[in-house]
Amino acid sequence: MKAAVFIEPGRMEVHEVPEPRIEKPDDAIVRVIKACVCGSDLWWFRGISQRQHGSLTGHEAIGIIDRIGEDVRTLKPGDLVIVPFTHGCGRCAACRAGFEANCTNAEPGGNAGYQAEAMRAPKADTALVKVPGDPKSYSDAVLNSLLTLADVMATGYHAAVSAEVKPGDTAVVFGDGAVGLSGVLSARMLGASRIIAMSRHEDRAAIARESGATDIVPERGNAAVNRVLELTGGSGADAVLECVGSAQSIETAVRVGRPGSTVGRVGVPHDAHIDVDALFWRNIGLKGGPASVATYDRDVLLPAVLSGMIDPGRMFTGAFDLDRVQDAYEAMSERRVVKSLINIGEI
Amino acid sequence: MKAAVFIEPGRMEVHEVPEPRIEKPDDAIVRVIKACVCGSDLWWFRGISQRQHGSLTGHEAIGIIDRIGEDVRTLKPGDLVIVPFTHGCGRCAACRAGFEANCTNAEPGGNAGYQAEAMRAPKADTALVKVPGDPKSYSDAVLNSLLTLADVMATGYHAAVSAEVKPGDTAVVFGDGAVGLSGVLSARMLGASRIIAMSRHEDRAAIARESGATDIVPERGNAAVNRVLELTGGSGADAVLECVGSAQSIETAVRVGRPGSTVGRVGVPHDAHIDVDALFWRNIGLKGGPASVATYDRDVLLPAVLSGMIDPGRMFTGAFDLDRVQDAYEAMSERRVVKSLINIGEI
Repeated sequence: MKAAVFIEPGRMEVHEVPEPRIEKPDDAIVRVIKACVCGSDLWWFRGISQRQHGSLTGHEAIGIIDRIGEDVRTLKPGDLVIVPFTHGCGRCAACRAGFEANCTNAEPGGNAGYQAEAMRAPKADTALVKVPGDPKSYSDAVLNSLLTLADVMATGYHAAVSAEVKPGDTAVVFGDGAVGLSGVLSARMLGASRIIAMSRHEDRAAIARESGATDIVPERGNAAVNRVLELTGGSGADAVLECVGSAQSIETAVRVGRPGSTVGRVGVPHDAHIDVDALFWRNIGLKGGPASVATYDRDVLLPAVLSGMIDPGRMFTGAFDLDRVQDAYEAMSERRVVKSLINIGEI
Repeated sequence: MKAAVFIEPGRMEVHEVPEPRIEKPDDAIVRVIKACVCGSDLWWFRGISQRQHGSLTGHEAIGIIDRIGEDVRTLKPGDLVIVPFTHGCGRCAACRAGFEANCTNAEPGGNAGYQAEAMRAPKADTALVKVPGDPKSYSDAVLNSLLTLADVMATGYHAAVSAEVKPGDTAVVFGDGAVGLSGVLSARMLGASRIIAMSRHEDRAAIARESGATDIVPERGNAAVNRVLELTGGSGADAVLECVGSAQSIETAVRVGRPGSTVGRVGVPHDAHIDVDALFWRNIGLKGGPASVATYDRDVLLPAVLSGMIDPGRMFTGAFDLDRVQDAYEAMSERRVVKSLINIGEI
């Protein structure tokens, strides 16, 4: 079968690799329909972080169950599933608390190989999210939205939940990539009446507005802090979503909230220096981390997509076949698209 | 009138000072019945932090309204009031969000002069907490418990709220001083079914047990982390209350929670170094700061004291007249008492 392979920074290829097989009784083999490129993939594609050359890539997919291990109870061949980047066992303390990204029984290295014609999904019953109904009944647009539930939409939702967005709140969202736009949608879902999106790219700001942003702030650093304070009558925001992870973004994010607000952060952190004593005196909270994908999907996001309440699939502004995976990465790295969709199989 | 005065580290005196007077129309003058010494006072009493020599001291009191300014609407002479260390205006964004410790209209230097026969209380309507009923009807024990609502009990409650303690949780409380013991009481109020108190002093551990602690852990540092993990089957606690503020305490506190837990911190921070990237990967939250005293008192704590649900006054294990203020500070500094009560006036 064909799979995307990381050759070296800036270079992806599609290689013929062995078909995956059931290795454990709770595994499933998923025939991938759609995968995509994540903003976090760009760190190694650009050579900023390390990744093993020759490794399989991708950690977001939807697909059809092809085969199941003998212990799998809730899925059967032919089922449409979301394949999250998380692999919760459902039994450990982290999973029971709804934080399956921190499952203590997760296999190391499980988050790879989704950009391929087929993949092995461990802990299928608990880790995969079954989409009800006839898989053939869904439009391509709905399938694209379901694909975002593998990571990016759930990650944006984790930012909003961690930031404790409440009805009537003014929320600020740092990041106008796919996670930031998901954060805007999520802040709206949780009832924010005003959503300030930090964006300096017209195409992304447009999607942010369509997703619920009421104000767009292009400034950064001190100027961004001053602008948010100005927009909130000097008070600061009720909730802050940090969806970038860069030092500048997080260091700015902790300065724009009112006393008692919380920064919900989902941007993978890169050397941020935060004065936690200063947070104390201002009663600013800091929460977040890797998202609870399957938990949010089942509880909130899958119903929200299927009912049409949200349509996060619109963030895929570029679509590519698997053979063009290099283009998919390049287009996203060069900001020509917000997020790259990779169409792989047919339902 | 008499008032406690800070002379130099290790030395308190009682001096004759001018009576306070109404300076602003929303002021009240309170005749102090009881005051006390706070753990945070020990930082300057021990010479670790700076304080102006000759300054008045104390930021916790209960008393009787003596006079009111012309704008005061909800209080009248003769009312029994709790005098919190906070002075919320009730109108700014911080106050409206219930974080009056961060009121943007608070007078600088307002937290002093409570250890005196009388004191000026600014923003009386919003900042003071009126105790209903006939002031003479309350026992001395109830009055002592009401005194804790000026700071320490509300601060412990802020730790529990910030740590997001929920029914059935296992909570860990760092600190066996008055705030830590208030944290134990508060964790129980919020429904924790297991409360691990970090304590190495037998007298304090005994009060912790009476307040709801189910386990006492005397270890510190790595040994403390290992012990909490052992007690929680390797999982870590659901909620962590940090009521010390020392670098070691906060650095240990962020290590004992399960993924998705939050450290609620109220200990005044002293040079803690926290690896916030590590918190991200474990989904550990960090919240807290100065407590919302009047808000918690009105919503929860005053009814809880008056109904007998909690009796935080038991943490006063030493009582002193105002003339013996030096002994009150010394006894607490030398850990001969958990918290020193200062009896000043009669109702």
